[in-house]
Amino acid sequence: MALLVEKTSSGREYKVKDMSQADFGRLEIELAEVEMPGLLSCRAEFGPSQPFKGARISGSLHMTIQTAVLIETLTALGAEVRWCSCNIFSTQDHAAAAIARDSAAVFAWKGETLQEYWWCTERCLEWGAGGGPDLIVDDGGDATLLIHEGVKAEEEYEKSGKLPDPASTDNAEFQIVLGLIRDSIKVDPKKYSKMKERLVGVSEETTTGVKRLYQMQASGTLLFPAINVNDSVTKSKFDNLYGCRHSLPDGLMRATDVMIAGKVAVVCGYGDVGKGCAAALKSAGARVVVTEIDPICALQALMEGIPVLTLDDVVAEGDIFVTTTGNKDIIMVDHMRKMKNNAIVCNIGHFDNEIDMLGLESYPDIRRVTIKPQTDRWVFPDSSKGIIILAEGRLMNLGCATGHPSFVMSCSFTNQVIAQLELWKERTSGKYEKKVYVLPKHLDEKVAALHLGKLGAKLTKLTPAQAEYINVPVEGPYKPLHYRY
Amino acid sequence: MALLVEKTSSGREYKVKDMSQADFGRLEIELAEVEMPGLLSCRAEFGPSQPFKGARISGSLHMTIQTAVLIETLTALGAEVRWCSCNIFSTQDHAAAAIARDSAAVFAWKGETLQEYWWCTERCLEWGAGGGPDLIVDDGGDATLLIHEGVKAEEEYEKSGKLPDPASTDNAEFQIVLGLIRDSIKVDPKKYSKMKERLVGVSEETTTGVKRLYQMQASGTLLFPAINVNDSVTKSKFDNLYGCRHSLPDGLMRATDVMIAGKVAVVCGYGDVGKGCAAALKSAGARVVVTEIDPICALQALMEGIPVLTLDDVVAEGDIFVTTTGNKDIIMVDHMRKMKNNAIVCNIGHFDNEIDMLGLESYPDIRRVTIKPQTDRWVFPDSSKGIIILAEGRLMNLGCATGHPSFVMSCSFTNQVIAQLELWKERTSGKYEKKVYVLPKHLDEKVAALHLGKLGAKLTKLTPAQAEYINVPVEGPYKPLHYRY
Amino acid sequence: MALLVEKTSSGREYKVKDMSQADFGRLEIELAEVEMPGLLSCRAEFGPSQPFKGARISGSLHMTIQTAVLIETLTALGAEVRWCSCNIFSTQDHAAAAIARDSAAVFAWKGETLQEYWWCTERCLEWGAGGGPDLIVDDGGDATLLIHEGVKAEEEYEKSGKLPDPASTDNAEFQIVLGLIRDSIKVDPKKYSKMKERLVGVSEETTTGVKRLYQMQASGTLLFPAINVNDSVTKSKFDNLYGCRHSLPDGLMRATDVMIAGKVAVVCGYGDVGKGCAAALKSAGARVVVTEIDPICALQALMEGIPVLTLDDVVAEGDIFVTTTGNKDIIMVDHMRKMKNNAIVCNIGHFDNEIDMLGLESYPDIRRVTIKPQTDRWVFPDSSKGIIILAEGRLMNLGCATGHPSFVMSCSFTNQVIAQLELWKERTSGKYEKKVYVLPKHLDEKVAALHLGKLGAKLTKLTPAQAEYINVPVEGPYKPLHYRY
Amino acid sequence: MALLVEKTSSGREYKVKDMSQADFGRLEIELAEVEMPGLLSCRAEFGPSQPFKGARISGSLHMTIQTAVLIETLTALGAEVRWCSCNIFSTQDHAAAAIARDSAAVFAWKGETLQEYWWCTERCLEWGAGGGPDLIVDDGGDATLLIHEGVKAEEEYEKSGKLPDPASTDNAEFQIVLGLIRDSIKVDPKKYSKMKERLVGVSEETTTGVKRLYQMQASGTLLFPAINVNDSVTKSKFDNLYGCRHSLPDGLMRATDVMIAGKVAVVCGYGDVGKGCAAALKSAGARVVVTEIDPICALQALMEGIPVLTLDDVVAEGDIFVTTTGNKDIIMVDHMRKMKNNAIVCNIGHFDNEIDMLGLESYPDIRRVTIKPQTDRWVFPDSSKGIIILAEGRLMNLGCATGHPSFVMSCSFTNQVIAQLELWKERTSGKYEKKVYVLPKHLDEKVAALHLGKLGAKLTKLTPAQAEYINVPVEGPYKPLHYRY
Repeated sequence: MALLVEKTSSGREYKVKDMSQADFGRLEIELAEVEMPGLLSCRAEFGPSQPFKGARISGSLHMTIQTAVLIETLTALGAEVRWCSCNIFSTQDHAAAAIARDSAAVFAWKGETLQEYWWCTERCLEWGAGGGPDLIVDDGGDATLLIHEGVKAEEEYEKSGKLPDPASTDNAEFQIVLGLIRDSIKVDPKKYSKMKERLVGVSEETTTGVKRLYQMQASGTLLFPAINVNDSVTKSKFDNLYGCRHSLPDGLMRATDVMIAGKVAVVCGYGDVGKGCAAALKSAGARVVVTEIDPICALQALMEGIPVLTLDDVVAEGDIFVTTTGNKDIIMVDHMRKMKNNAIVCNIGHFDNEIDMLGLESYPDIRRVTIKPQTDRWVFPDSSKGIIILAEGRLMNLGCATGHPSFVMSCSFTNQVIAQLELWKERTSGKYEKKVYVLPKHLDEKVAALHLGKLGAKLTKLTPAQAEYINVPVEGPYKPLHYRY
Repeated sequence: MALLVEKTSSGREYKVKDMSQADFGRLEIELAEVEMPGLLSCRAEFGPSQPFKGARISGSLHMTIQTAVLIETLTALGAEVRWCSCNIFSTQDHAAAAIARDSAAVFAWKGETLQEYWWCTERCLEWGAGGGPDLIVDDGGDATLLIHEGVKAEEEYEKSGKLPDPASTDNAEFQIVLGLIRDSIKVDPKKYSKMKERLVGVSEETTTGVKRLYQMQASGTLLFPAINVNDSVTKSKFDNLYGCRHSLPDGLMRATDVMIAGKVAVVCGYGDVGKGCAAALKSAGARVVVTEIDPICALQALMEGIPVLTLDDVVAEGDIFVTTTGNKDIIMVDHMRKMKNNAIVCNIGHFDNEIDMLGLESYPDIRRVTIKPQTDRWVFPDSSKGIIILAEGRLMNLGCATGHPSFVMSCSFTNQVIAQLELWKERTSGKYEKKVYVLPKHLDEKVAALHLGKLGAKLTKLTPAQAEYINVPVEGPYKPLHYRY
Repeated sequence: MALLVEKTSSGREYKVKDMSQADFGRLEIELAEVEMPGLLSCRAEFGPSQPFKGARISGSLHMTIQTAVLIETLTALGAEVRWCSCNIFSTQDHAAAAIARDSAAVFAWKGETLQEYWWCTERCLEWGAGGGPDLIVDDGGDATLLIHEGVKAEEEYEKSGKLPDPASTDNAEFQIVLGLIRDSIKVDPKKYSKMKERLVGVSEETTTGVKRLYQMQASGTLLFPAINVNDSVTKSKFDNLYGCRHSLPDGLMRATDVMIAGKVAVVCGYGDVGKGCAAALKSAGARVVVTEIDPICALQALMEGIPVLTLDDVVAEGDIFVTTTGNKDIIMVDHMRKMKNNAIVCNIGHFDNEIDMLGLESYPDIRRVTIKPQTDRWVFPDSSKGIIILAEGRLMNLGCATGHPSFVMSCSFTNQVIAQLELWKERTSGKYEKKVYVLPKHLDEKVAALHLGKLGAKLTKLTPAQAEYINVPVEGPYKPLHYRY
Repeated sequence: MALLVEKTSSGREYKVKDMSQADFGRLEIELAEVEMPGLLSCRAEFGPSQPFKGARISGSLHMTIQTAVLIETLTALGAEVRWCSCNIFSTQDHAAAAIARDSAAVFAWKGETLQEYWWCTERCLEWGAGGGPDLIVDDGGDATLLIHEGVKAEEEYEKSGKLPDPASTDNAEFQIVLGLIRDSIKVDPKKYSKMKERLVGVSEETTTGVKRLYQMQASGTLLFPAINVNDSVTKSKFDNLYGCRHSLPDGLMRATDVMIAGKVAVVCGYGDVGKGCAAALKSAGARVVVTEIDPICALQALMEGIPVLTLDDVVAEGDIFVTTTGNKDIIMVDHMRKMKNNAIVCNIGHFDNEIDMLGLESYPDIRRVTIKPQTDRWVFPDSSKGIIILAEGRLMNLGCATGHPSFVMSCSFTNQVIAQLELWKERTSGKYEKKVYVLPKHLDEKVAALHLGKLGAKLTKLTPAQAEYINVPVEGPYKPLHYRY
């Protein structure tokens, strides 16, 4: 794919797979809107005052139908938006087309190469003269990473004249990042530094990106304020849990049509994502086994009737393996060799390094048979035995299906909108330092409240006497900060 | 689509959508074989003796990947096979292509018109000189119906010279059937009568077809022996129940991506299919309501914590409506008018007449917006309110997804193979009269046993003393005929 | 306990533990009535016409609160009733007291010896001059057995003068039966033969008793008509399944207070009782393993995510073992020796011979520590390791808790009332031969229908067109006989 | 009951119901030990060093079998212990007897009056000369309350000579407390002040007590350090959730034998306790409805398929009502009047003021019929309609059953032991101020780890590279403080 930026008739830049899918995308966006009451409420509440007037927002987050509704909520509130996906397989091309045509600059398509992926990320941050975005919506932290690495390299270059050297790392993807920055320094040695200056802040969507942010905060290298959206209750306890409970079986079914009932399913990790996956598999009739490092999560699994074993204990018995850990090196090629013929191996946690894709690809004489896109059978040479890898080890719910459903993403994305509004509103007040913040509980409760009506729920109201008795305001927030839900 | 029969280089007839998908079909067939131990066991046990040597088998049954494994089991046992689908949307085109190229005459594609559908059925029964098939594998009874109607018309024609008159019926589909027979009588006034003479028998797959067979048995009009495969325990209590538990959410997700959690789902009918659907929806987090006519099934629903109400009680609150009744006129256009905007209405039970598609289509000024194939939004004129119909009211798991998964279909289809073997073996013995039979329990138990190894199960063996104590043979069958499982 | 019959002031015979509990029993009977709409409906429908006027009914069925409501339904319809329990531990003494005081002759207490048990059974059948009962309500078939053995012995005695010899059998319980009959022949050599003459028939409650009846039917030795109540759908698919789902954890909790969550529970047998037990244990958070002989039931367990293994495979890992088979010699003393310390072993299926109590009791130097009645720790001599046996191996839900709850027993017992009414109505018509019958489906559906109102359910009504379409009467029955629910 | 302190032969003080039950208590304590690996591990790890040597511990916590194992763990570590129950119905008399005989001073019996209850609490704190206890184990905060109120009154008395006046409050229970303190000041005007001086700290078990502590911390009135055990993950997410999932149905069954399947169950509150209750009721086959004030918890319920309504919406349809809120005035007498006949009303949350017992008792002409202890039918005068109240509105799992099972209490109580050890170890270090603390995460994880072996679980070990990648120590703690599990 030639990496050329195209333009709509109105001059908006984009690069998508197939602009003719825009109508189809629009129809699905309209369906999704009905399922996303939180975002629609934001439009109704804030749209008239155009709070984002003048704000440039760059987003790096799976370019799906749900994200399209988020983007159009941001634009409905006055923002100008550029977008890329945060995963090479997660773009829904009809969503990208509809947004590119109607609402925002989009650089995303399903099945990017890593080179293309970072090209898109760069485009997403490129606002022409005057530097970069005012705000970033990030998922996994790649946009944030690029800026931080860019600034670091520019500072080094200014100091020592040394350019970043892709050969200095083994990591293929990081080589691309360094190459990109090297090339950009040659053109403009202050590009990322200027970007940093303008930047008001970032709101981060997911565990992995949040972890990176806290590490930068701890090491004092964080360059701008960040809001941790992931740890809103209405995000991590909803999208991670209920989203995966929905989208894991969806991905398995679309990719393999395999019957889940009767199978042995091994879920690596029993955090929110793992809990959602295990619940889905169990209720579909699988025998679920969990692997865990954390004794508390392990004991939770046991209380739900799920055995906790090590991967080595069950590697030869499992039919389906799912990684949900947010860590690396979970399922190694040596594990895969010991699996049953046609065992399914997939990742719904984090990057593709949860599964040892590198080890698999470089296994001597291994043979890859692509059943269909994102569904590959890898056949070991010493037998006719193969295993089935979904989405090349990347997030299978986005690679093989359509990700989380609209309703639960409405919770997550309403948090995003609120976080962006907060950062923008306080851009000059100094309220936010170069630290990581979570949203206050009353906003978290508000996000939930916005989603109850659609489901026909009715809340009970505290009487003043009751509120006093439990020492909370009648209108909330109702729980102490440490409450775990 | 021009209705012309094509031929492979080896001379085998076919009509499929796209022969270039044959490789893809073959890869998925190979995956499915690993999941269908019952059929593979039949190949191993019976293949060497070629019991179907000389037998012509016509099948009218969803032309999916799983059916492909069934067809190739029949051919592996020596049969010659012709096939069509029993549903206009259920064909998987890559499966049809692989079979057409490699194994059997196929006339089937996804999205047939009714006219095309019956043309395919006719082709499937057409074996050239010497009459029709020896055996029929039927699903829903359309092949059986065509022969019975053909014979009836030919007899009438012989007696009175009267040709069937399509105008004699309101039913659009039956008009096509009558037209077809009228045309065939003009060419060969004994075609179906000769077919009947040759026919050894039929094995019928599903409730609806079985119901028709018992009615013909009761009225004395059944023309050949029939084996009711549907009421093998390993069929009706597996494929209907566990198959639908799997494929209902699969169809919903592929068609609409809707979040099931939090929704109100109304399941019309709580038979085996309804039980599977309700279980799936409940465990996905929906609030399920069941409608029932049968007090026993209703009480079962209540014991599972599912309220039993009438459709009128809940029509305005439901988000998802599923018909599973095997009856007609379940959800009428007047119900649909009262539903919420974007309520999803689908059928997984039987024919498209469970939903009043005719009433919907003929509703004044209604507007149909096709989101994507098999997913239509019907917008009522007096508002912007619409409802979403899946698969045009036909079986949504086959129209919007890929039907039941391989493993459970292996149970059903192993029953089919055993039934076909039995009919063929006894073709001259007189064992089977023009009646409907079920398979003996020991074969039913055998089908189950063939599927245990794949799931790592180990059976306990009765001691002779125990067997005597409960008065069964050590090797089974273990239960009385009336046992309900 | 001295085995002396006592009399109420009105002259009614009884033998119960403690008459002072009658008031307490009455209060619980009144609560139960609210939960037993089927029985209350029978009183309303049939009470005025007194159909049992003149009928003597003997019942051998767990003397619980629920049974009390059954007994008082029989008396409300005009019957005279005598009752005993069919299990030495199942009597609820307050229920027995209330009935003895208010309604019927009762011979039952919790904790009978076997000798006492059969004395009670004998009393229950003893109606003074004029022979025995007109009708029997039996559970497990002990009353029926006593009559059949009595008649057999009397015939032998008449023929050969030989008296039954208790020493002719190893079975301790059967020795008691033979002794009883021997003594009765000495007093009246025609007692059971006369009883047989009078008897109109028996309605049998449970699988074990039904199995015995079919064996007698097969061997031509059945002496009177029998109605198999167990195989009414509203019995076997309700009380066996949902009753045990309720009462198994109830019994476990009352007997041991053990936390079920996290434990490995082994359920021997996956019939209706096993399905109920497995469901309860699974939802309480246990890891359930099933043992099965029947491949179909085994495959059902697997489809629910439950592994199927042999007892030997899991004996060392199980924390809780439950027998539900209806067979004997399921858990042997050699199994028990291999179990974990304080493993719980109990039976909810059938007689105490599911567990090898004899082997346990006779194990050299074993030590029995009674924690509380029906909860014993048996300590093996070679270690301090012990296992916990509930209810001495007899039905633990009745021994350690209060049996099935009222609502589900209302289904079962409404079938009993209907069966008794049917036998009595047709006592002279010859409709029933010396065979085993099940109730017709429309009565089964009626039993279910009587229980819907209490749960707020509303049935859908078939239109005549729909009824014709599926070929059933508008008012039912709705299903073919072979339908499995 | 005469409130006289008795003494064992060794001179230990006690007041229990029936010392003859000590052997039975001992047997059940021995069973419980096998289920409480955390406490047993503490004995093994710390017993040899006798860390509590010299420490006086007063405990106010349900005097059950599980608590007995806690007490004997404290004594095994060197402590001297006095104990009372924190609920008038929760004592298990055989547990109290065994402890009184063998291990500690106990003042507790099932069915105390409020007067007796506070007498017991006073005894528990009374260590003779030298003041009160060094440490308190509290549950609900009554022991802590008594000391705080005592000190406040003594200070007032010293300042103004004014004695506390029971007539100054409406609250019947608080009148007793004030009377007690008034009487104690008359005897020793410095009793509680001296107690405070000696006190090292308290560890508090439950939500309600913790709430009181945080309020005192906020108002600056907390007199000594407190460790909030409730908010250890291994407490609130285990005992509150899984404990109630077990003990709610246990209490319902023992008290009423009611069939849960098919019923409408209304759970007021969807916190940890409510989640456990709802899960248990749902899996037992009830239709569950939740009432909530908190939109986040409400949305969680919806995601599990549970409708969220107000009590007024469902009061006429519910069969079972359970309060779990920790608030007051949840189910009022006006609600109860509208309920179905024999609706069951119970509380598993907090104090008996969740249910308007006062309103019920003072309802004109209401009639109370005691079915059995802790199970009362209250009959409204204007009808024969009654409702059933469990445990007089107090914690029904402790009043009607035996509370949480041993295994989950082992988690909670291991936290207690660790908290007590920590307070005692740091008694002079100044580490703990007059504030509320939670245990550090690594101890929380340790508690979980101690319970895995019993359930046969195996943890996965992080590699150093993985630990570095996610930035945690290889040995944990593995999660950030805000992690919600």
